[in-house]
Amino acid sequence: MRDLPVLTGDAVADAATDWPIAEHRVLGRGRLNTFVSDTVVTPDGATMVRDYLTHTGAVGVIALDEQERVVVVRQYRHPVGFKLIEPPAGLLDADGESWLTAAQRELAEEARLRADDWRTLVDYMTSPGCLQESIRVFLARGLADAPRPEGFVLEGEEADMEVCLVPLDDLVAAVFAGRVQNPTLVVGVLAAHAALRSGREADLRAPDAPWDARGAKAARDQELGELEAP
Amino acid sequence: MRDLPVLTGDAVADAATDWPIAEHRVLGRGRLNTFVSDTVVTPDGATMVRDYLTHTGAVGVIALDEQERVVVVRQYRHPVGFKLIEPPAGLLDADGESWLTAAQRELAEEARLRADDWRTLVDYMTSPGCLQESIRVFLARGLADAPRPEGFVLEGEEADMEVCLVPLDDLVAAVFAGRVQNPTLVVGVLAAHAALRSGREADLRAPDAPWDARGAKAARDQELGELEAP
Repeated sequence: MRDLPVLTGDAVADAATDWPIAEHRVLGRGRLNTFVSDTVVTPDGATMVRDYLTHTGAVGVIALDEQERVVVVRQYRHPVGFKLIEPPAGLLDADGESWLTAAQRELAEEARLRADDWRTLVDYMTSPGCLQESIRVFLARGLADAPRPEGFVLEGEEADMEVCLVPLDDLVAAVFAGRVQNPTLVVGVLAAHAALRSGREADLRAPDAPWDARGAKAARDQELGELEAP
Repeated sequence: MRDLPVLTGDAVADAATDWPIAEHRVLGRGRLNTFVSDTVVTPDGATMVRDYLTHTGAVGVIALDEQERVVVVRQYRHPVGFKLIEPPAGLLDADGESWLTAAQRELAEEARLRADDWRTLVDYMTSPGCLQESIRVFLARGLADAPRPEGFVLEGEEADMEVCLVPLDDLVAAVFAGRVQNPTLVVGVLAAHAALRSGREADLRAPDAPWDARGAKAARDQELGELEAP
């Protein structure tokens, strides 16, 4: 095998980058997302067209009890035609709400639980070739019952949702067997497993650690807003 | 904390499920995906509207050399405004091509490499609330140089792509530091780390192991095709 450049340490890092948009079109508007098409100018001066769905971003919670069992819900996901085993999660949909507050709200709404100890477990983008979404996954420990937030009503697929506990090791086995497929569950379970089994738990980032994807999203949203303005 | 039902073993499994579609609309058509809106009938007889992007599905490859270094590319991803560190990956876009053949093609096209040993590392759905996409990630070992497939030309953001090697442990550290965010990289690196460090490598599934998400997709595609027919 030929020699390839080797990247190590802090150089192993994504880079916020924004190639110029020469033309922007709206292909369709949904309730939460807009399907758009941008003609982008590449560094060598060529152009390429990229269609993608805008997205507000989301948070998810791997909530672990004292026996290393993970709180999950079963939820019907129409786009993929599956009822999936998932961690509590939701959209960043309330103006000005912090990421941590959003995660705490989702844990209370979906599982009627609260947690004492919150860490940033992992951040990821869900499908960066066609979707603007980025997700922060928290690790939450020190669980206790909590009331469902006032005024919150379970609707649609959430009305059909069941809350369960699953031992972390059973979830890892289910990931490798291909029996669970939700991205935040797969990412969160593998990250929690690595953190707990490799002694990295104390190194996990604070819940309010910087999240660069949010800055890139805000810049893009402003740019698209200006391009769509009459 | 109150008692919750506990799920263990093989019961930890997603379930293919298809709630009836009462109404189907096309919101917008892109080059590769269609943005659709389905009115879905829930088990209690209510209806809910769900907007989502159709997707052909994809494969990715965690290719490990003999020093446990992972083959990565850096690629501009316009929807998120980042140049990301990613494993070779691509759409299941060729008629009748097997998932494994698609992954082997992507490894040759993007990195000019081939591999002797292929396993199914992990399957996941990227954003099951708004996107139909499912991805199979392979673990590939026994790397050697390969010619780029005949007729293949790097275009757009791929023309700007760099191929590198990154030690697996440096990638795990980058995941926990929030420096890398591509979903197939995050999932694949954490899964490879778990497989190699927990003695699960010999248990990894065969490259042609069943992949239930593909059956659910085929059924949905047929249903949508019939609903869209004049």
